[in-house]
Parts: sequence; C-alpha cells; structure tokens
Amino acid sequence: MPAQRITATYRIETAYPLDEAVETMAGEQSTGTFVRLPGETDEMRALYGAHVERLTELETVEAPSLPGAGVPKGAGDRPVWRRAEVVLSWSPDNFGVSLPNLVATVAGNLFELRPFSGLRLLDIGLPEAFAEKYPGPRFGVAGTRRLAGVERRPLIGTIVKPSVGMGPEATAELVRVLCDAGIDFIKDDELQADGPHCPFEARARAVMRVIDACAERTGRKVMFAFNITGDLDEMRRRHDLVVELGGTCVMASLNSVGVVGMVELGRFSQLPIHAHRNGWGYLSRAPELGWSYVAWQKIWRLAGADHMHVNGLQNKFCEPDESVIASARACLTPMFEGKPCTVMPVFSSGQSARQAAGTYAALGSADLIFAAGGGIMGHPDGPAAGVGALRDAWEAALAS
Amino acid sequence: MPAQRITATYRIETAYPLDEAVETMAGEQSTGTFVRLPGETDEMRALYGAHVERLTELETVEAPSLPGAGVPKGAGDRPVWRRAEVVLSWSPDNFGVSLPNLVATVAGNLFELRPFSGLRLLDIGLPEAFAEKYPGPRFGVAGTRRLAGVERRPLIGTIVKPSVGMGPEATAELVRVLCDAGIDFIKDDELQADGPHCPFEARARAVMRVIDACAERTGRKVMFAFNITGDLDEMRRRHDLVVELGGTCVMASLNSVGVVGMVELGRFSQLPIHAHRNGWGYLSRAPELGWSYVAWQKIWRLAGADHMHVNGLQNKFCEPDESVIASARACLTPMFEGKPCTVMPVFSSGQSARQAAGTYAALGSADLIFAAGGGIMGHPDGPAAGVGALRDAWEAALAS
Repeated sequence: MPAQRITATYRIETAYPLDEAVETMAGEQSTGTFVRLPGETDEMRALYGAHVERLTELETVEAPSLPGAGVPKGAGDRPVWRRAEVVLSWSPDNFGVSLPNLVATVAGNLFELRPFSGLRLLDIGLPEAFAEKYPGPRFGVAGTRRLAGVERRPLIGTIVKPSVGMGPEATAELVRVLCDAGIDFIKDDELQADGPHCPFEARARAVMRVIDACAERTGRKVMFAFNITGDLDEMRRRHDLVVELGGTCVMASLNSVGVVGMVELGRFSQLPIHAHRNGWGYLSRAPELGWSYVAWQKIWRLAGADHMHVNGLQNKFCEPDESVIASARACLTPMFEGKPCTVMPVFSSGQSARQAAGTYAALGSADLIFAAGGGIMGHPDGPAAGVGALRDAWEAALAS
Repeated sequence: MPAQRITATYRIETAYPLDEAVETMAGEQSTGTFVRLPGETDEMRALYGAHVERLTELETVEAPSLPGAGVPKGAGDRPVWRRAEVVLSWSPDNFGVSLPNLVATVAGNLFELRPFSGLRLLDIGLPEAFAEKYPGPRFGVAGTRRLAGVERRPLIGTIVKPSVGMGPEATAELVRVLCDAGIDFIKDDELQADGPHCPFEARARAVMRVIDACAERTGRKVMFAFNITGDLDEMRRRHDLVVELGGTCVMASLNSVGVVGMVELGRFSQLPIHAHRNGWGYLSRAPELGWSYVAWQKIWRLAGADHMHVNGLQNKFCEPDESVIASARACLTPMFEGKPCTVMPVFSSGQSARQAAGTYAALGSADLIFAAGGGIMGHPDGPAAGVGALRDAWEAALAS
C-alpha cells in the first residue's frame, strides 16, 4: 500500500454482499453519495475515490449488533450478517493535510450507513506529510523522564482524591504527604478544574510551593499534572501560570477539548501534556461501533499529547486486560519513520503492587506512568510504605 | 429542582440494586471514587457531591446490552438487568462555569463503570451562568432568515456533489446552475476542505463571484456554507476570507473541531455557523450507550452553532423518523429564559418534495433548512423545476 495514501481499517457487519457494502463506504466517504452522480467522472473516481485496499471476510452472526440496518431484497426473514475487516485508502489531496478533516473523512458519516449493523474504526495510517505539519509529543518518554528525574523504571504516580471538594491548602497538604512519601508523579482529578472553592491559580501556587520545598530537599521535582482543561484563553492562562511557577506538566481532557483545541495546546505548550481520556467509554464500549484505541490515540499523539491514559490491568472499569495492553503497546509503537511520536501510557484504576509484574510481562517496557490511589494512601503502614511497595514491585518485575 | 444546579438525565441498565448503582455514578462523578475516601467528609459530600434527584425504574431485560458489566454476588447465573432513568445534579461550584469541564463531568468516566451494561446521556440542564459566559448562536433563525432573504418558509438548500473531486471552477459552475434555479442555501460537502485540487481560497472566490452576480440580478444573496473545518489558524483565515468576499455562512464539523475549537469559532465568527454532525453515529447508534441528540446539541448551541444537522424523514441512513423529529424539536426549544439559543435544524439525506408535508406536520414549524440533492439536480425538468417543486410542496404544507 503506498505510504503516501491515508488508510483506515474497519471491522464491519452487514447483511449485504460484502463487496457491495464496502463500495458504499468508499463512495460515501469520497467522490460519491449513495449513488453514482452525473458529475462523477471516471477520472475523478480514479484520483479522488477511496480505494478498497483489502477485504477479509470474518465470521457470520445470527442477529445484527446494532439496530436500524437494512436488509437486501431477497434475503428473506433470516438474513446472514457477515463480518469483515476492510482497509480503505484515500489520496491526501482529497482534503489537504489536516487532522480535523481527516477525522471527518475516516470517522464521519460512516457509522450510520444503512447497510451496516456494525462499523468500527480499528486503525489509521497517515502519510509523512502529517508528521511534517503537526507537532507530535514535544516531551514523550525521554522528556518526561528528564523532567521527573526518573530513569529506567516507571514513574510511580497518584491522583488527588477526593476528586473535588478540597480547597487549595488541603490539596497542597495531601501533595506534601505524597512528596514526603517519595512519589514521582501526581495529577489533578479530571473533575477538578477552576471552581470557586478551589480556584486554579490558588491551587497551583499552593501545590508548587510544596513541590518546590520538597525539590530543595531532595533535588528532584515531583511532576504534577495540573488540569488546565477549559476554553482556549483559560488553557493558555493556566498553562502560562504553571510555567511561571516552575511546574512540569499540564493535563487536558481530550474529549472535552477536542482536536482543534488539542492541536493549539500542542503548539503552545512548553510542558508535557498529560492527556486524559474520560468519555472514552462512549466511543468504544459497543464492540461493533465506534473507535478502537489503536486508531484513536494516533490523532492525539500527533496533536501533541505526551502521556495517554490506557486504564490498567484488573481495573475497576469493564475493560479486559488484553485491550488495556493493546492500547499501551500502541502508545509505544512509532507512528512515522522519522518521527515516532511515542508517548508514555498511563496505567490507572485499581492499580497496586500486585499488577506490576503482569504489566511489565505483558508490555515488555518500563516506559509508563503507573498511577495508584488506594495502593498508596490506603497502605496500612502509610503512604511512604505504599510508594515503596510499588517501587519494590517494579524493581522485582524489572529484575526478573 | 433548583435552576442553579447542573442536571443530567441518563438511561441506565444494571444487574445491581438501582439505588446502589446510581450512588456509584454520583460518587464517581463528584467527590468520591468507587469507594468513600478517608478525606471525603460529610460536609464535602453535602456541598460537592452529586445528588440523585430522581430515579424511575423502567423495564427489565434478559441479557446485558453491553459487554463487560459486573454482576452482584448472589445474583446467580441469570441476573435480572434493570433499566431506569436517573437524574443527577451537581453544584456548578464543582468545576466553574465551563463547557469543556461540564463534558468531563456529565459525560466523563461514566460509560465504563462496571455496574452498568448500559448508560446513555439523555438530557442536560444548565444554570443561567452558562448563558452569561458563552456566546450562543449569534444569528439563529432570525439572523439566518435576514441574511438569506427568506421569510416564513424553510430555506431550500442543497449540497455540492460529487463530495470531492471538482475544482473551484466546476464548483462555481454548479453553484451558478443552482443560483439560476432559485436555491436559497448551498453547502460544501464535509469531505471538501482545502486540498490542492480545490483550494479553499480559489473555491471561495469562484463561488462568491457567481453568488454576487446572481445577487445583482435578483437582489437576494444565496447563502453558501463554506466548510472552514481545520486547525484554529486555518479556520480564522478562511472565516476572514469569507467575510471579506461578502459570504454569509461558514460550516464546521463538530466532532472534528471539538468543544474548545467551536467555542473559539463562536466567539470570533461574524457569520452564521452551519454545524455538521458527521460522526454522530459513533456517539449514538448503540441504543444503550452514548449521547442522545437532545443532550448533545445543547453543548454546540451554547458554543455558538446557528444551524444543526438533524438528518431527515425517511432518510438514507438508519435513523427512525421519530428520532429525527425529536432532534429538530430540541433545536427549536429554548435553553434559557433570557437566552433561548434556538437554532435552525437542517434536514438532509434523501429529502425531496415528498417529505415536506410530513416534516411540517411533525415539527409544527417552518424554521428549518431543507436540503435536497437528487430532488433538485435529478429533477426530470431540471434544477429550477426541482427547486420549484420543493417550494411548492412547502407552500402547500404551510397552507394546509
């Protein structure tokens, strides 16, 4: 497949003949509409039509996975629903080198097409021109390790909880306990933003005072991901304040900010961007609809995310372990030859010392942030013992 | 329910006791995590905890709608999956008046919570403070009618097709035919952006030359929605060019641009914003997951959208008619007492004269854009007859 074309891989489910269904997808997302138009010449189709690069038939199912799908005439009242994997490709000349317009093409008006009772975007492939235009992660794994002063092993992290309700001083007091415990990384909860009881500026100042005091003692600055999610002017102002205060990380909720906002943040940020995926469930939880994480995370890496949430093994949500590991592997897989855009996967949700060995065995890398809540603050011998236990578990995993 | 609180209505499905499941939602999206934390005081919960305002039990189902949901101990191997409608509310003090942070709260880490085999956001309610902070539609129904020179009846519109492949001059030639036919409104396809074969600037200049020439003859300027979707600097530049050329509308793909980008566009746009919902299928097509349009469209109206796509009756996608009408009604329902934020619903997909009467009967309003493709360009007596037939059908509907 020529590397200069945009590709997208889908899993589809349809009662129509597969080649016919796939031509509908290709037509709808390029030159055509549902039917061939008078103005749609052969030359136009050759240049700008989406190509079907591969079509692999998979299993059949007895009932449609999603409602509303059409059934071809003559299929009777018990049609066969076929699944297949299909790769489409587009010329980048269709819309120019643009992440927002890429999304409208590979993930636009497809999911509602009537022939399909299932349509999920599994992966995307982008020409080098995208790497030239978009910033990608400025810090990634190496820059994060340098700022956090952590080599070789994962960054041991945690989240400020309760999610909301604590004021700046209470937050700073918790941060002091965590710094004293030897933590590497702390993040705001995604529900914590800039409310009147815990204004961003007061929180950032209080937290950085504690972190600076700790850094003076230890020579190592704990990385705190301040949630700067907000309107663009607010994100800029909060980012600038964190830079001014000597902070080393900002956080943004991807589904709240969106592609255009994240591209802007990626362009102006002087700090690693900790990308939170809250809302990911509505994009992914129906197995035959939406986005796979493998496709989705590429958009945000190119926009400039440095850390990407991937959930964790034996997590408290409903995602199976193999899906978590596939997501984390994707974050560490280079996107372009000259610009890998690799980012640190962030493991969280119910994580403790008991998942360290399994995570390392499955991922084969220690380039990750390992965030635990109860495993640290809830440790019977106190937070320092909690951080110590996590470090020990990772040292043991790395040594094995 | 106090108007100063943020509310969100969900349909849920769970094998757990309903009150327990709902407390998990409320806790996870406010002060708590999955379990009550040591730092989570009663005072904190009272002030910042999400309240369960209403819980209405609905039907039970025999199998979970989504995979991965947990089952309570003792439920046996055939648990009952209960559905319910639940209203949660939050103090706006939790995160400040902010659309992006609202999204992270009402549509964040909820959809993956293990107790739920279904979780769909049905509606949201916002305090007046949101109306004070965000622009809302600057033009809406009245401003669009004024710029398009169309009173009382729907704007009759169409889409430039083939979607991609035509250069600026071929596009302008099609626009000339449509202007001569008496059309009110034309839009770029969402796949058409700024590719090298049809650069935005050349297309806008060529199209506006034709529209201006027509306006000189007829005294009425056809509204053309130029697709300015792109990075922020690109959207600004394209918007400014359309203003400079005397154009009267810009278009953006909501799921490509995102909330922060749309808020920015809403703030700087001097023209009505035609909001395209491509990708809506992945947010909505699994019935027990994701977003209802009623909830979703409120975000974009407040950000500044003036026209919102709602699909059409007997459309070529897989959405039923009652869902289309519910979406259109939502667009015309005021959001705030002092700031209704009502927008023009855009009907499209397989629309022709035959849907006019049904659309009017179901909606009870002519404040809409009615976009037809084949019904105009494919009319046996030519495009002017096609536009005429659509106008006649709407006049008949309005008179009945």
